[in-house]
Amino acid sequence: MAKNANNEKAIALHKKLKGKITISSTMPVKSREELSLVYTPGVAAVSSLLAKNKKLARDYTIKGKMVAVISDGSAVLGLGNIGPYGALPVMEGKCALFKTFGNVEAFPLVLDTQDPDEIIETVMRVAPVFGGINLEDIAAPKCFYIEEELKRRLDIPVMHDDQHGTAIVVLAALINAMKVVGKDLNDKNRWVVVSGVGAAGVAVLKLIKLFAPKVQIIAVDSEGIIGKGRKGLTPVKKELINKKIIFADKSGDLAKALIDADVFIGVSKPGVLTGAMIKEMAQKPIIFAMANPTPEIMPDEAKKAGAAVVGTGRSDFANQINNSLAFPGVFRGALDNRVNKITDQMKIKAAQSLAALVKKPTAEKIIPGPFDKGIAQAVARAIT
Amino acid sequence: MAKNANNEKAIALHKKLKGKITISSTMPVKSREELSLVYTPGVAAVSSLLAKNKKLARDYTIKGKMVAVISDGSAVLGLGNIGPYGALPVMEGKCALFKTFGNVEAFPLVLDTQDPDEIIETVMRVAPVFGGINLEDIAAPKCFYIEEELKRRLDIPVMHDDQHGTAIVVLAALINAMKVVGKDLNDKNRWVVVSGVGAAGVAVLKLIKLFAPKVQIIAVDSEGIIGKGRKGLTPVKKELINKKIIFADKSGDLAKALIDADVFIGVSKPGVLTGAMIKEMAQKPIIFAMANPTPEIMPDEAKKAGAAVVGTGRSDFANQINNSLAFPGVFRGALDNRVNKITDQMKIKAAQSLAALVKKPTAEKIIPGPFDKGIAQAVARAIT
Repeated sequence: MAKNANNEKAIALHKKLKGKITISSTMPVKSREELSLVYTPGVAAVSSLLAKNKKLARDYTIKGKMVAVISDGSAVLGLGNIGPYGALPVMEGKCALFKTFGNVEAFPLVLDTQDPDEIIETVMRVAPVFGGINLEDIAAPKCFYIEEELKRRLDIPVMHDDQHGTAIVVLAALINAMKVVGKDLNDKNRWVVVSGVGAAGVAVLKLIKLFAPKVQIIAVDSEGIIGKGRKGLTPVKKELINKKIIFADKSGDLAKALIDADVFIGVSKPGVLTGAMIKEMAQKPIIFAMANPTPEIMPDEAKKAGAAVVGTGRSDFANQINNSLAFPGVFRGALDNRVNKITDQMKIKAAQSLAALVKKPTAEKIIPGPFDKGIAQAVARAIT
Repeated sequence: MAKNANNEKAIALHKKLKGKITISSTMPVKSREELSLVYTPGVAAVSSLLAKNKKLARDYTIKGKMVAVISDGSAVLGLGNIGPYGALPVMEGKCALFKTFGNVEAFPLVLDTQDPDEIIETVMRVAPVFGGINLEDIAAPKCFYIEEELKRRLDIPVMHDDQHGTAIVVLAALINAMKVVGKDLNDKNRWVVVSGVGAAGVAVLKLIKLFAPKVQIIAVDSEGIIGKGRKGLTPVKKELINKKIIFADKSGDLAKALIDADVFIGVSKPGVLTGAMIKEMAQKPIIFAMANPTPEIMPDEAKKAGAAVVGTGRSDFANQINNSLAFPGVFRGALDNRVNKITDQMKIKAAQSLAALVKKPTAEKIIPGPFDKGIAQAVARAIT
């Protein structure tokens, strides 16, 4: 009932707002002279300048400040493949958050194609307008290919937020959660289990491994542990094994993976984690149950089973591990510092900056809340 | 010197503004509750709604208000093919004018392709976000094909402003100029010469012929009068002959075309019209010399040769025949009235509305100035 009431409220609000972003002129044109500067004939001087040197576009046009939020609507929230029209309210919301949290100007482009090469092509063609590309809610595994190609071919920063925004925030939360339980992450006796090996899961475990090379990571998808014995793995999952990013000598289900593990990170499905599984984990287990809107396990149940620290993606529980802590600052920093590629080292620094904002982490506070001050600025300083 | 000073002023202004449009949030997010309505989980209800019924996007998202200003930079102002980066300041300026004059929200998309089919494809793919498409500064003849295809394939209004915005404003000016000289346009003894048969010229002469079917129109391009005897004509020019839109039984140069003509409409090049030619025209000739920034003939010279009414594209002379009188109102009307196609009848009505704003036309005032009140509203009422 409460959920339906909230749905109705959201629908009514959207109908009232008629779009969550609005465009205005930075210089309202009020006289013929102003008109002749902003438009013809004056603008011709600026156009001639940029035609000769396109790098100057960042100084003279919206390219210096504008991020595109791009989606094909193939993996929207927990709703799945709902297409561009279904995706538009989410991308507009993202643009509103960009502005609210990072003072970043962003424009949503939802695309009427789901073909990876057509998505790449389209982004390449509109790229002259933008200073950064935020890819969003594009299904795995095509999201990996799309991001990789765009990064290679464009000279502006490209980030698939479902991957890297999530990875930054999870790493920040994990750094502080490990402090709370008094364990060292970079230790070959520490075990992290990542449940869900889509866009978010892959980026999360890669960033953790890069930050703490000694930690042991087990990846579990809907068919069980990803190990050397598994047939029919996607190239991305095979790469995790071949590059030794994950520990691939086990097989079995999630319950088996979790025996003696220190950390559970869920970017998977509601209900996959049980109290019984938590009881088999190492002492003081950390549980990040981030499936949306219903977590892999509810926080009270996880605590009852012995979880020392619990985080979810939800705003109505403690420790909301939410992308909005990362993406506004990442692009704020990229634009301010004219960064053309967002590197892994920048992401790790961003996670550390974010973690450092919580002076004394406790089980109930491992990560800043979205409305805490200075978040985007702290993250932005890392992107350089 | 004055021109260089103005150029420097325009460049300095653009560097200061860093983009002539800015994006803000219609609802700054200040609390967790607001966050849960604008973004997850609340937004999911809106997304589900639109995924089921995409027509509702106009009511719940920016699609109901947002126009794309699209250019490939192939024919920018008088500068020619300067590409997307050169085009961007012009398209941003256009967006600023959309907002200033018509309270229309518009976003510039300059494209890194000049292939007609790729342009069409790209616009089709980004169309879910927009309630209208304004094509701009795309070279002829590909502009005709691109506009036609997009009109056919999209269910939102598409208008190439260089064609139809110009045509609306020229027709409005012509209606009033004919009043000033006391002639009837719809008369087989009236002759209109259109110099320049690119995007603007073709649209102008087509709309005039539709409004006044009896008038005789001669079209002149850089090689002379377009007549039945000419070889190697483009399909668009052949169509003007075949559909009897122009009088095609003459041949020769502009001077010959103008003998006994009542109206000269120039969308061509500086200096092509001389006082000597005007002297050969019918009594009380009307001269619209709209080449930018330098007209086909300067107004004082035209008047000295006997022109009864003179208009140009420039703000520093009387009778500025400028697109900004039309496009903001056209899209304002199309959005407000949920018009999916902008028809010729709507364009004619818009021209009549625009003309009617000048209660008593005189030789010095045949058309409203850009800052006169009520222009966009008057045009918008015609788009229904």
